[in-house]
Amino acid sequence: MSETSAVARLLKPRSVAIIGASSDAGKTAGRPVVYLLKHGFSGDIYPVNSRASSVSGLRCYPDVASLPGVPDVAIVLLGAERAHIAVRELAERGTAAAIVLASGYAETGDEGAERQRQLIEAAGSMRILGPNTIGLVNLTDSICLSASGALAMDRFTRGSIGVVSQSGGILGALLSRAAARGIGLSKLISTSNEADLDTADFIDYLAEDPATKVIALYLEEIRHPEKFRRAALAAAQRGKPIVAFKIGRSEGGSRAAASHTGALAGTDRMYDAFFTEVGIIRANTFGDLLDIPVALDTGRVLRGNRVAILTSTGGAGTLLSDSLGVCGFETPAPDSDTAAALRSLQAGIHANFDRNPIDVTLAGLQPDLLRGAIRILMQSPTYDALTIVVGASGVGSPELMASAIRDCLPLSEKPVVAFTSPHAPEAAAILTQYGVPAYSIVESCGAALDGLRRHYRWKAPADPGAGHVVSVADLPSGSLDEHQAKQLFSRFGIAPVEEKVVTTAVQAEAAANTLGGAVVLKILSGEITHKTDVGGVAVNLTADQVSSRLQAMTVEVEQKTGVAPTRFLVQQMLSGGTEMIVGMHRDALGTAILLGMGGITAELFDDTSMRLLSGRGGLSREQVMEMLAELKTLRVLQGFRGRPKADIEALVTAVVAFSTMVSQLGDRLMAAEINPLFVLPETQGVRAADGVAVLASDGPPER
Amino acid sequence: MSETSAVARLLKPRSVAIIGASSDAGKTAGRPVVYLLKHGFSGDIYPVNSRASSVSGLRCYPDVASLPGVPDVAIVLLGAERAHIAVRELAERGTAAAIVLASGYAETGDEGAERQRQLIEAAGSMRILGPNTIGLVNLTDSICLSASGALAMDRFTRGSIGVVSQSGGILGALLSRAAARGIGLSKLISTSNEADLDTADFIDYLAEDPATKVIALYLEEIRHPEKFRRAALAAAQRGKPIVAFKIGRSEGGSRAAASHTGALAGTDRMYDAFFTEVGIIRANTFGDLLDIPVALDTGRVLRGNRVAILTSTGGAGTLLSDSLGVCGFETPAPDSDTAAALRSLQAGIHANFDRNPIDVTLAGLQPDLLRGAIRILMQSPTYDALTIVVGASGVGSPELMASAIRDCLPLSEKPVVAFTSPHAPEAAAILTQYGVPAYSIVESCGAALDGLRRHYRWKAPADPGAGHVVSVADLPSGSLDEHQAKQLFSRFGIAPVEEKVVTTAVQAEAAANTLGGAVVLKILSGEITHKTDVGGVAVNLTADQVSSRLQAMTVEVEQKTGVAPTRFLVQQMLSGGTEMIVGMHRDALGTAILLGMGGITAELFDDTSMRLLSGRGGLSREQVMEMLAELKTLRVLQGFRGRPKADIEALVTAVVAFSTMVSQLGDRLMAAEINPLFVLPETQGVRAADGVAVLASDGPPER
Repeated sequence: MSETSAVARLLKPRSVAIIGASSDAGKTAGRPVVYLLKHGFSGDIYPVNSRASSVSGLRCYPDVASLPGVPDVAIVLLGAERAHIAVRELAERGTAAAIVLASGYAETGDEGAERQRQLIEAAGSMRILGPNTIGLVNLTDSICLSASGALAMDRFTRGSIGVVSQSGGILGALLSRAAARGIGLSKLISTSNEADLDTADFIDYLAEDPATKVIALYLEEIRHPEKFRRAALAAAQRGKPIVAFKIGRSEGGSRAAASHTGALAGTDRMYDAFFTEVGIIRANTFGDLLDIPVALDTGRVLRGNRVAILTSTGGAGTLLSDSLGVCGFETPAPDSDTAAALRSLQAGIHANFDRNPIDVTLAGLQPDLLRGAIRILMQSPTYDALTIVVGASGVGSPELMASAIRDCLPLSEKPVVAFTSPHAPEAAAILTQYGVPAYSIVESCGAALDGLRRHYRWKAPADPGAGHVVSVADLPSGSLDEHQAKQLFSRFGIAPVEEKVVTTAVQAEAAANTLGGAVVLKILSGEITHKTDVGGVAVNLTADQVSSRLQAMTVEVEQKTGVAPTRFLVQQMLSGGTEMIVGMHRDALGTAILLGMGGITAELFDDTSMRLLSGRGGLSREQVMEMLAELKTLRVLQGFRGRPKADIEALVTAVVAFSTMVSQLGDRLMAAEINPLFVLPETQGVRAADGVAVLASDGPPER
Repeated sequence: MSETSAVARLLKPRSVAIIGASSDAGKTAGRPVVYLLKHGFSGDIYPVNSRASSVSGLRCYPDVASLPGVPDVAIVLLGAERAHIAVRELAERGTAAAIVLASGYAETGDEGAERQRQLIEAAGSMRILGPNTIGLVNLTDSICLSASGALAMDRFTRGSIGVVSQSGGILGALLSRAAARGIGLSKLISTSNEADLDTADFIDYLAEDPATKVIALYLEEIRHPEKFRRAALAAAQRGKPIVAFKIGRSEGGSRAAASHTGALAGTDRMYDAFFTEVGIIRANTFGDLLDIPVALDTGRVLRGNRVAILTSTGGAGTLLSDSLGVCGFETPAPDSDTAAALRSLQAGIHANFDRNPIDVTLAGLQPDLLRGAIRILMQSPTYDALTIVVGASGVGSPELMASAIRDCLPLSEKPVVAFTSPHAPEAAAILTQYGVPAYSIVESCGAALDGLRRHYRWKAPADPGAGHVVSVADLPSGSLDEHQAKQLFSRFGIAPVEEKVVTTAVQAEAAANTLGGAVVLKILSGEITHKTDVGGVAVNLTADQVSSRLQAMTVEVEQKTGVAPTRFLVQQMLSGGTEMIVGMHRDALGTAILLGMGGITAELFDDTSMRLLSGRGGLSREQVMEMLAELKTLRVLQGFRGRPKADIEALVTAVVAFSTMVSQLGDRLMAAEINPLFVLPETQGVRAADGVAVLASDGPPER
C-alpha cells in the first residue's frame, strides 16, 4: 500500500473501528461513534469494547481480532498504557491508519517519548495520527473521526479551506468559529505529537485534494523543515495559498550569540524567513488564521493598494478608513467620472461622492441603489478593492443585501469584503457564503486585504547560480581572526579595507604612515569577537598617535580579558560610506542570510531583513534587492538628505557573494558576519571593515 | 441656571419634548418616543408634530408654544432648514438643552458651518448637543434620548463605564457590543459636531457622576485642547481612568517641515504625547475601547508583569501564553510552594503544575477544584495577575464556574481575566458581570492587562520649576543662523561645540589651526536649514584641507541653491559622543518637546519620545528620564557593547534647559532644534553641534 493511499484512506475511510468506545455519550470515549452517526457517516462503524455489547445502537466487538472486516481507520481511545497493544493488533490486521488520542507521550518528557517510540514500533507500516490528537474531520464527505466537543454542533459549513492544527483544542476552536461565521472548511486535521504523520503530509494531501483551495495551519513547531518546505512549495505551485499562525513569537534570540547576526536572527525571525521563502502568509493574530484564508478562498485578486469604502453610516466608514490607513492602504476620493456616475444614482441630498468613505446614507440600504454603487466602484479605475460597511440596518434583509453585492462580483476580479455589525451574524454568514468575506472586527478587514497583498506579491525564488567554486582548503579551522576572516570573504569577491597586521608599536606607526590619512587600530584575535567591548578598537588616529595608543590598548585589553594582545591591525579609516551588516544564521529550519543596518547599534534598531538559502546555492540579485527594499536604511543608501548615492550594485554583488560562500562551505562554515560592510559612493564599491568567521574543526569537506 | 445643572438636566430630565416626532415607529423620527417608553422613562413625554394628534399613544402637541410645561430637554428631529426655528422657541420657553439630530451643518462645508452658527445663535443660553448627533442614553436612570437603532434591543446591562463618542454610529455600535458581552455602561453621549457641548463637558460630568467609574472616549478630533486637558486631569484626580480610541492614526507628519522634529512629530504623535500627559490610556484597536475599560472597571490593581494562566485545555493556554508574551508579559512557572499547593488538589495524572500555563486538565471543570486552584494562584507571590481559560466546556454550567471564580476575588487585588470561547457568550457575559472581564479574542486579554499596566504606571507630571529667566531681547527675529541658534541655546545653559565664524579660506584655515585636530566646515545661513542636502557640510578635515574644501563647497552650494555662501563655520570635530536630537513641535494640542536618536538618519529610525509642556514651565528631570527610558538609544548612552557610558546627567540637564527655553519664549519661538546634540562620556557634558531656531518677527514679548 503506498503512503498516499494510506493518508487518503485515513481521510476518507469506508470503515472505522473505535477502540475503547464507550456507550456513555457523555464521556470522551463515547463521542466518536455519536459524531460519526450524527454527521452521517455512510460506511461501517465497529465499536470495540470488551465490556459492552452495543454502543449507540451499533453492535460492539470485544476485541480487534473479532472485527468482521479490516477497518480502513481505527480511532484508539485507550490510555497510553494500552494503546500500543491495540495499535499492534490493528497493524497486523492491515488497518491503514490509527488515530491515537491518548496523551502521556513525548509531550510529557523522556518516559513518554519512550512510550511514543514503542507506539510507532507497534504500528509497523500502519500510519499513526497523533498521539495526543483530537482526530480529524472531513467535512467534504461528512466524516468525523474526532472526539472534539465542537462536533456536538448540528451543522457545519462545507467549503474549501483545509486546516491542519498541531493543537487539538485549537482544531475545535477553529471548527466552531468557522461554523458561526459561515466560513466553509474542507478538512480539519489535528496532528499534535506528529509521531508519524506530520503537518507536511497533510499539506501534501490538501494540495492534491480537489475540495481544498486554501490551507490554514496552526503551528507550534516545524519538526521536519525540509519535508515541510517541499510540501509548501508544491502547494504554491498548485496555486493553493497557505496561511500559518505560529506561536513562539515572544522568544528572543540568543543574546549570548557570538555575532550580532545571532542576536538579531532569533528563532521567530527564522520562521519569518522560512515562511517568506516558501510563500506562506503568516497570520499576525489568531483571528487572521481564518480571516485571511476566507479572503484568499474567494480567488479574487488584489492588484494594488487603493481601497474604496462604501458605507451608509459615517462613523463606521471613518473607522474603517482609519484602520486601512494603519495597514498601509490608500483610500483615495473617487475620480471625477466615478463621482459623476455615483451622483447619477440619486442617493439623496446628504450622500457624498467626492470623498472616500463613499457615504450613500440610508438610501444605500435599498438593494438597487447598493447594486448600482457597487457596480460603479467595481469598474472604477481608481480602486483595487472594495470594502462595504453593512451596519445593523443590514440585519433586516440580509439575503437581499447579500444578493445585491453578489450580483456585482462578476464585474471584476477586485476583492470585495464587508465590515459587518457583530449583531448581524446571519448577514455576515450569508455574505461570506456568497463570496464576500464579512468581518465584524474592523482591523480584520485590513488584515485580510493585507494577506491578499502579501500573497500576490510573493514570487517563488529563482534558482540561484552556484557561483564559481572557491578553494578554502588551506584555511585554518576554528575561529578565524579578523584579518583571516576578511581574506576568506575576499576570495569570494568581497573587498576588505586596506590594512596591515603588526605586532609592535613601531610596525604600527610605519603601517599608518604607509596607509596615509586617519587609521583604525584594533587588536587581532580569533577568540575575542566583540573587540569594542574590551577596549580593543581605536578609531580616527593619526600616524603619530598610533604607537602610544597601541601601548595603552595593550594594557586595557589585558585588564579586561586577562590576556595581553600580541597582534594588531592597522586599517585605513573609511568615511562617507554607509555601514551595513551581512551575516549568516543557521538553525533547524535552515541557513539564513541577514542584511541590515550595520555598526555598533545594529542590534538596537534591528533594521534587518532575512532570507533562507534554498539549499541550491546562494541568493539571487533579485532576492537581495527585495531584502534591501525591506530596510529603512535603503533610503540612506539611495542618497538621503543630500548624501551621495551609495554603490548599491556593489552591495548587492557582495551580499550575493557572501551567500554563495555560505552555500558552498555548507556546514563547515559555522558562523560568518561582516559588520560593518562599508558601502562607498556610487562606482566606488564596498569594503569589509570587520568580520567574523568560524570554520568547523573537523567538518565535512567542502561541498 | 448654571451650566452644570443644564448638563445634569440634559442627562436626567424630568420632561422631554420630541420635536418632529413621527407616529411611524419605522421612521427615525418615530424612534425616540418608542425608545423612551420601551426603556421605562418615568417623566413627561411631549411629542410635537402639527400633523398628528397622538404618537405611540401619547398626546401630540402642534408646536412648542402649546406644550403644557417647559421641557427640561428637547430632541429636535427636524431637518437643518427648520431645526433652528424650533431651537429658538425652545430656548425662549426656558428648555435647558436641545439635542439636534439633523445633519447638514459644519460637517458639510462652509454653508453648513454658517447654518451651525445660526443654530447656536438661536439657542442663546440653552445648551445644544450636536447637531448631527444620535443623542444620548442614560442607562443608570433608564433614559434614552436617542434615535439609535441599537436601542431596539430589550435590555441593557447597567454598569459604571461612561462613554462619549464623537460619532453617532459608533455610539450605537458600542452600546450593542457592550450589551452582548454583559459589559455595564452608565451613560453614552454622542457629541458629534460639538457646536456647543463638547467631549470635555461630558468628561466633567462623568467625573462627578457617582454611577461612573471609568470613561471611554471615541474621538475624531479634540476641538478645545485646554478645556479637554483640564477635564481629563480632573477626572484623573478623582480616580476615574479614561480610555480613548482616536482615529487619524495613519496621517503622516508634514514631510515639508523645516526641522527633523516637525517631520518626526506629526499630528498623531502629538495626540500620543497629549494623552500621555493627561493620563489617558490610548486604545490601539477599536475593540480595546471596551476591553480596557471593562478591566479598569473592576478596580483591581496590576502591580507587576507576571501572569498565571490557568487552563483545562493545553492549546488555548499555549495560545494565550504566546499572546501575553508578545505584549511583554512574563509567564513564569509556579514557585515550588505554589506548585506543591496545586498538586495537593489532586487534579489527575495529566495535570501539570510545574509549568505555566497551569493545566488542570478536564478536572478543572469541577468548581471545587477550580476554586482551589484560583485561591492558590491569587495568593501566590509569583503572580501579579491571573488569566483563566474558559473553554467551550464552560458552556454547560457558566453560573457555577463564574461563581467559583468570583468567590476567590476577595483574596487579593490582582486582576483576573478570562479567555472564553466565542461560543460561550452567556458564560462570558456572566463572568464579566461578576467582575471577571471575559474576552473571546486572545489578543484582547493582553491588551486589557496592558491597559491596566499603563494606567498604574502613569503619574501626574510634577509641577516644573520655571527656571531662571534669560533675556533674549537682543536676538534678531526670523530664522537664526546655526551660530546664533547655538548662542541662544547656550544662554539657557546648553554648551555648543567650539567653533569660529569665518568668511574666507584664509580665516578658515587659521581657525582650524586654532581649534586643533580634525574640524568640520559648514556654510552659515539662516535660510538653508538642511545644509547637508546642498553640499554645505564637510567633516573630518585637517587644517591644511580646509581652505580648498571651502572653495569647492562654495561652488557646489551655489550650483545647488543659486546663491554662493559667504559665511562659514569651522568647528571642532567631536568623536566618541552619542548623537541625540532635541526639538520642539507646536500644534493645536500644545507644545511638545521631542528627544531621540540624532544624526542624519533620525527620521528613518524614529527612535524618539515626546512630551507636552504643561503650560506651567519646562519638563522636570523625572519626565526627561521617562522619555529616555522609552528610547532604544538609551542603551547606547548607558555604555552599549563596551562603549564608555555617556553623560546622561548632562543630557537630562540640557533637555530640561531646552524645555525651559521653549516655555519661556512661548509663541515667540516658532521652531527650535538641536541635531546633533553630542553626549560625551560621563562627566564631560554635552555639546550642541548643530541647531535651528526661528523667532517670530513680531511675536508677543517674552512671557
